[in-house]
Amino acid sequence: MDYIKKPMGIEVKSFEIIGEEMGPHSFNERELSIIKRVIHTTADFEYKDITYIREGAIDAAGNLLKQGIKIYTDTKMAMSGMNKRALEKLGCEVVCYVSDEDVTIDAKKRGITRSMAGVEKAVEEGIQFYVFGNAPTALFRLKELMLEGKADVKFVLGAPIGFVGAAESKEEIEKMDIPMITVRGRKGGSTVAASIVNALMYLNVDRN
Amino acid sequence: MDYIKKPMGIEVKSFEIIGEEMGPHSFNERELSIIKRVIHTTADFEYKDITYIREGAIDAAGNLLKQGIKIYTDTKMAMSGMNKRALEKLGCEVVCYVSDEDVTIDAKKRGITRSMAGVEKAVEEGIQFYVFGNAPTALFRLKELMLEGKADVKFVLGAPIGFVGAAESKEEIEKMDIPMITVRGRKGGSTVAASIVNALMYLNVDRN
Repeated sequence: MDYIKKPMGIEVKSFEIIGEEMGPHSFNERELSIIKRVIHTTADFEYKDITYIREGAIDAAGNLLKQGIKIYTDTKMAMSGMNKRALEKLGCEVVCYVSDEDVTIDAKKRGITRSMAGVEKAVEEGIQFYVFGNAPTALFRLKELMLEGKADVKFVLGAPIGFVGAAESKEEIEKMDIPMITVRGRKGGSTVAASIVNALMYLNVDRN
Repeated sequence: MDYIKKPMGIEVKSFEIIGEEMGPHSFNERELSIIKRVIHTTADFEYKDITYIREGAIDAAGNLLKQGIKIYTDTKMAMSGMNKRALEKLGCEVVCYVSDEDVTIDAKKRGITRSMAGVEKAVEEGIQFYVFGNAPTALFRLKELMLEGKADVKFVLGAPIGFVGAAESKEEIEKMDIPMITVRGRKGGSTVAASIVNALMYLNVDRN
């Protein structure tokens, strides 16, 4: 069988096809690198219309990443999809607390999701960079903690997916005046979240 | 803010919404549990039309899972999305070789993808259950190895995603007469692959 076997060749060709098929848009070059990577990850051009990049968000995220900060994410899958080499070069660390024993016990006792208990733990630690690819409840809870003046959030990537609360959680977080990228509506997910983090990292570090 | 905070409540409600919105279909109950879980994972109803479940595939996968077999997958993300508790209850193990040192060195030397080298290693080990959520090249390579009589494949889940080779890789594997589930066209991905494996496991084991 005849098929392209060179990894970088496949990615370059994919981005070309996406560029040809995505049609007119008003993204600048850095925004476009994010949007194309999301489409590359989902094979779904709707992300062109539902990915919201707030003005200044790319710079804010980049500045944090270049400081080698700790990133909190709500799923192991998103964590697993982030480019390890790029993270390492930036000196960043990614953590996800939803499976931690103390979080599991706390969530069970209080009848809340592990995602909520996990984000509370991250806030207590003073984490400033948040990536949500799964749990609307984590995003709702983060907003509550911000309103209570407990969370020092410098960047949020809000991409929970699903049918119950996902769209609403993103509408709610958008009311906050902080740098953010969101995926509006029901769509999003851990692969989308990871691809956006990767795109942000590739704007600030050589990925190879 | 008022939002549902009980994890199982959210999933049950989500499945209800999906059932209401998905419209007419001809899936049987077990097929439907797979399709709904994929839609739950992607918030994308197109999966109703592009997910192909070959006759007998659910039984074949279930019989293998109940034997506690080793599952090969082409991405860490798909691995990370599979329900650990269900895997453990079934006595199954999931492996992914794309980051193994020998695989990385071999791929670089031969100018092929790590995904191809990884699936070769799995075939050499005699693995019979394959899950592809990312790499068309892995699926192409697996078919070649089957045609060469080297691979003893008992079940394939083919859900590579993307713009270069993904659709073709699934068309090619469908020509093989083995139990399989595929996601046709460009869509698919590691979250989709993991959700199908989870749905197959939940048909055979209590998930809690």
